[in-house]
Amino acid sequence: MLGEDEVRHETCTVKPMYNRSLNGSVVNLTLDSALLKGNPLGDPHARTFPAYLPPGYDESDTRYPVIYSLAGFTGTGLNMAGFSVWEESLPEQMDDLIVSGSCPPVIVVMPDCFTRLGGSQYLNSPATGPYEDYLTDEVIPLVDGELRTIPERERRGLLGKSSGGYGALTLAMKHPGLFAAAASHSGDLYFEYSYLRDFPKAVDALNQYDGVEGFLKEFAGAIKKGPLIPTLNIIAMAAAYSPDGSEPCLPFTTPDGELIAEVWERWLAHDPVRMVEQEPYARALRSLNLLYLDAGDRDEYALHLGARIFIERLKALNIPYHYEEFSDGHFGINYRYKVSLAMMAKALGKY
Amino acid sequence: MLGEDEVRHETCTVKPMYNRSLNGSVVNLTLDSALLKGNPLGDPHARTFPAYLPPGYDESDTRYPVIYSLAGFTGTGLNMAGFSVWEESLPEQMDDLIVSGSCPPVIVVMPDCFTRLGGSQYLNSPATGPYEDYLTDEVIPLVDGELRTIPERERRGLLGKSSGGYGALTLAMKHPGLFAAAASHSGDLYFEYSYLRDFPKAVDALNQYDGVEGFLKEFAGAIKKGPLIPTLNIIAMAAAYSPDGSEPCLPFTTPDGELIAEVWERWLAHDPVRMVEQEPYARALRSLNLLYLDAGDRDEYALHLGARIFIERLKALNIPYHYEEFSDGHFGINYRYKVSLAMMAKALGKY
Amino acid sequence: MLGEDEVRHETCTVKPMYNRSLNGSVVNLTLDSALLKGNPLGDPHARTFPAYLPPGYDESDTRYPVIYSLAGFTGTGLNMAGFSVWEESLPEQMDDLIVSGSCPPVIVVMPDCFTRLGGSQYLNSPATGPYEDYLTDEVIPLVDGELRTIPERERRGLLGKSSGGYGALTLAMKHPGLFAAAASHSGDLYFEYSYLRDFPKAVDALNQYDGVEGFLKEFAGAIKKGPLIPTLNIIAMAAAYSPDGSEPCLPFTTPDGELIAEVWERWLAHDPVRMVEQEPYARALRSLNLLYLDAGDRDEYALHLGARIFIERLKALNIPYHYEEFSDGHFGINYRYKVSLAMMAKALGKY
Amino acid sequence: MLGEDEVRHETCTVKPMYNRSLNGSVVNLTLDSALLKGNPLGDPHARTFPAYLPPGYDESDTRYPVIYSLAGFTGTGLNMAGFSVWEESLPEQMDDLIVSGSCPPVIVVMPDCFTRLGGSQYLNSPATGPYEDYLTDEVIPLVDGELRTIPERERRGLLGKSSGGYGALTLAMKHPGLFAAAASHSGDLYFEYSYLRDFPKAVDALNQYDGVEGFLKEFAGAIKKGPLIPTLNIIAMAAAYSPDGSEPCLPFTTPDGELIAEVWERWLAHDPVRMVEQEPYARALRSLNLLYLDAGDRDEYALHLGARIFIERLKALNIPYHYEEFSDGHFGINYRYKVSLAMMAKALGKY
Repeated sequence: MLGEDEVRHETCTVKPMYNRSLNGSVVNLTLDSALLKGNPLGDPHARTFPAYLPPGYDESDTRYPVIYSLAGFTGTGLNMAGFSVWEESLPEQMDDLIVSGSCPPVIVVMPDCFTRLGGSQYLNSPATGPYEDYLTDEVIPLVDGELRTIPERERRGLLGKSSGGYGALTLAMKHPGLFAAAASHSGDLYFEYSYLRDFPKAVDALNQYDGVEGFLKEFAGAIKKGPLIPTLNIIAMAAAYSPDGSEPCLPFTTPDGELIAEVWERWLAHDPVRMVEQEPYARALRSLNLLYLDAGDRDEYALHLGARIFIERLKALNIPYHYEEFSDGHFGINYRYKVSLAMMAKALGKY
Repeated sequence: MLGEDEVRHETCTVKPMYNRSLNGSVVNLTLDSALLKGNPLGDPHARTFPAYLPPGYDESDTRYPVIYSLAGFTGTGLNMAGFSVWEESLPEQMDDLIVSGSCPPVIVVMPDCFTRLGGSQYLNSPATGPYEDYLTDEVIPLVDGELRTIPERERRGLLGKSSGGYGALTLAMKHPGLFAAAASHSGDLYFEYSYLRDFPKAVDALNQYDGVEGFLKEFAGAIKKGPLIPTLNIIAMAAAYSPDGSEPCLPFTTPDGELIAEVWERWLAHDPVRMVEQEPYARALRSLNLLYLDAGDRDEYALHLGARIFIERLKALNIPYHYEEFSDGHFGINYRYKVSLAMMAKALGKY
Repeated sequence: MLGEDEVRHETCTVKPMYNRSLNGSVVNLTLDSALLKGNPLGDPHARTFPAYLPPGYDESDTRYPVIYSLAGFTGTGLNMAGFSVWEESLPEQMDDLIVSGSCPPVIVVMPDCFTRLGGSQYLNSPATGPYEDYLTDEVIPLVDGELRTIPERERRGLLGKSSGGYGALTLAMKHPGLFAAAASHSGDLYFEYSYLRDFPKAVDALNQYDGVEGFLKEFAGAIKKGPLIPTLNIIAMAAAYSPDGSEPCLPFTTPDGELIAEVWERWLAHDPVRMVEQEPYARALRSLNLLYLDAGDRDEYALHLGARIFIERLKALNIPYHYEEFSDGHFGINYRYKVSLAMMAKALGKY
Repeated sequence: MLGEDEVRHETCTVKPMYNRSLNGSVVNLTLDSALLKGNPLGDPHARTFPAYLPPGYDESDTRYPVIYSLAGFTGTGLNMAGFSVWEESLPEQMDDLIVSGSCPPVIVVMPDCFTRLGGSQYLNSPATGPYEDYLTDEVIPLVDGELRTIPERERRGLLGKSSGGYGALTLAMKHPGLFAAAASHSGDLYFEYSYLRDFPKAVDALNQYDGVEGFLKEFAGAIKKGPLIPTLNIIAMAAAYSPDGSEPCLPFTTPDGELIAEVWERWLAHDPVRMVEQEPYARALRSLNLLYLDAGDRDEYALHLGARIFIERLKALNIPYHYEEFSDGHFGINYRYKVSLAMMAKALGKY
């Protein structure tokens, strides 16, 4: 029968047999952002995003540590909480860890920093919007106001996969006062391998569709978006790393595709492998209670090499870290969250 | 801010910019089935499934026609209502059609006939469970009791994709008193092409894992399930079409893979291409107000050929139909629902 | 006819470092066939094909056993003797076996039974030409006349891969007086799996190009023939197995692709799995000194299953055989010749 | 040296129907090189390579212009003259052009500059051998001595595909006194795109097999070499562009894969895109009677972008060129030779 309660509470949380039901719950928060108002891409300023609440949340007034989970390129928080027949969603993984006693209870917030370019890299750019400020100045205060978090740096972490891993690393570098733990699953590192490989594809597509605007129009109308994603990715990265006012400045000429050294250097300046060599960023990472990295040993974007190069830097700078290399590629690796979620919940839960 | 109402109602319905919010809403219904109790696969008897309600549902006491939307193999109703960044979910498609005035308002129910074999083909089998009875004798009465449907044959239709299309066609054949419209998107037809092609893969996998039980154990534990799906599909079809008590009877020997004619014939007897030659089934289809079929013209399972062969039968039997062949394959074709949803809502909405 | 000079000055045999030079030699024979004159496809009647001669051939008047090596679909004898940087050609494999003392010296003849449909299946058909007769009545007498073979059944074998394996098996069945040994590498067996899988592709292509004639025209002009090969294969098999006068009779309708049972039965009658159940054929195989079969355990055409099903028949019929299943697919398996060449040279070399 | 008989009795030239027989002929030349003696890879110093002679060569004492055709990576001259069922070999293309009157008769020589690393890039390196000198100081004199060439710069050209195109461009730059025409089909240009993309794969493989030596051992024994070729390619390029004595110096660290700027710069110094900015090289190209370039517009190594970037340089330097971009990728493009062969034969044939 259709119970009142079920109508009220069950946003995607009641699972059939193939996945257990949650013991905790998922709620959606809505934030009408002042910062995103008038953003250059015309993306909405009011956004809804899910948060996982641990078992017993409703029956007590306990406050909990909070983990911010950042989606990868083309993803948002809503995807992380979505239902999948044979795969545990992030809330299900967290729930299972807590219920099995593998770690203390925490809240997990899955914010929305999506743009119509596929993502924002969680930084401020005049070509996308102030997503870094949005996260630190609007999302975190909202969460701390609406949910029973422990609103302290020592009880706040962030993690992500791919572009979300990039966001976790760079936000931890830039905001040492906000976060005590960071985890990057297959995060964007060493741009020479991870991005440059897709430049030729992007050159061809931009030539085909007469530039960025034409491409984005094509993309919007395309039924099969998959083959266009690598080009969208390059445009989104240009919007994040090398904006020229409200426009992305591409790191290559068209139609030839020759690299433009000055623009490419602007990209490289955003590579955590280079950022970490600035002492304030190194100090920020050194101050973390947990710095977790992993990558698949056959990552299609060579992010395992990126991770290895990055941790060589960490070693040289005396920055503690935990690194795991697992046998897989870049895709279909959501199951890896379970490792970082457990470690981070423990790191944030102890005093 | 976290509004009371949003907490209460928004199961997956608040979408960021990349997809509009719904004007209607999605609710989840839960049914603790008496029929599924003790099913041979140990699948849960209590299941939750979503239903789309048209705009204005809450503000009036209007009753609406209802469409049952059946998921394909490896899918459930919850997947149909799930969030996708760049793709309209089925509720979003329906909502858009209604709001734009393309068709009258209807309710769409997305039931759960999943099994741990990946699906049930929407029929009764001692090796899976009485999913046909479950749908007709439990789901429909529940829906008619809990939601403001017009509980009449003329106002009830069903549709689906792939195995869901198979379900729509065969349930319409078997229950002419229940449904007045049926739509099959790339439905399973002409088993000689659609299933036989995967037998060798299944033989190899079953040899590798020592039979069905060993395979299912492997499947349950596999992180990457994709390569195992074709074999799971063959096992599920055997459980549906050729059960031997509570076990699936495979249509080939192991380890050689030689076809077993008697078992293969049991499969073929379930092929709509053959079923339709039985007059009661033909009569049932003839009585429909809408019989819709489509298929991609390069369907990987040759279901466009299956559809053509089927409609040759329909022609010969004077059964009216609407057939569309579109330029695509078997996967990533959820956008096709929009065509059948509009036609069916119109067919069910007029008197 | 075989010119003196051609015997002396071998072709393609001087190899750079990456492959050794031959110790034996390769000569080209030319045969202007009376039987192929006026063949329905307009293929040439005069053909040149290579033969491998063992080391010392020129310096003695020894006579040798002879192995006929039959090319697979889309291949001819010239391909078998062709140069490849990192792969031993068939003559190189044979040469290496003889020089290393692994087997006695033999002659290997690589005839040309190619057609513009890609092959002939080594049988007589009004739609291709009398390739079986050509081989037994023209090629073998020419070889026995021009080369120092031991022109006796006990000293004559035949082998092949894929369609060549099919040819070896079926010619051995039909001509027990000619051949004492046969070897089939991944030969065409159990047509339900090996051919039927490509029917849908063929249906689509034949619809696209308006039938066989239009398709063949397209094929002739196509720069990239690869994607068209599966359809060419089906046409060639129809020309071999189900000719209708000088035309191939397809085993399915167009444009729907429905199987035509009578035609499909004509195909199946050519399947060695069925042929062997006729006692004369079984007796022929039983009389062989060597019946070798192998297949890759992940053959894309399921020919490992075909081979297993075939040897079940052999067992039941008390026909001795040697079967090997190796870890590979259907392509890039020329290295397997070395196994059968050695066994066959030994079988033909002993009394 | 070239034996009389070998000139007379051509190899591989009798073709069945699917390809016409040659009107001209192919002879094999053998050269026992003094320069290659003791080469560091232990590759043979005596090598045999084919030359195409135009129709009527044997019946007159006419002398002809000569084109040197350079094989791509993993290929040799013997491959170019090899038999293919449905594809015209280079001699067949040349023959057809001459016979149809599309261009004057020429000789085409297909030398062997292969190494066990897959190729030499047609340059001198202590890690492979003096292949540039071998070609200019040994092959050309031998050819001019043994065949009736017109042994003048104005009657000598060179062309190639992929690494062979690279060889054609760079040899034309370095030896303006030897060659009056050069053609590059999809030649290696703009190493940032063409090589860097495969570095991660190479890093992984070199880690897996414990470095270059271990990798080469694995390669030598591998039945399926395809997946190893990209790594072999990187090793071969390191041996050509950045030798460290007799060893290739890799442009990245292992196991991390970080680029080593100094080594990478050594590679880039060999990029024709950079070489051409040296005035002697520009002058050499400017002096050619024909500079032909082409590339497929979806070349997998982005060589169409490399070609465009290169011709921007040519334009800026007032170097005439002919450029074609065709609709294809990097593989299966041997049919493109026909375009450059015709243009080059005309350029070398007129005064």
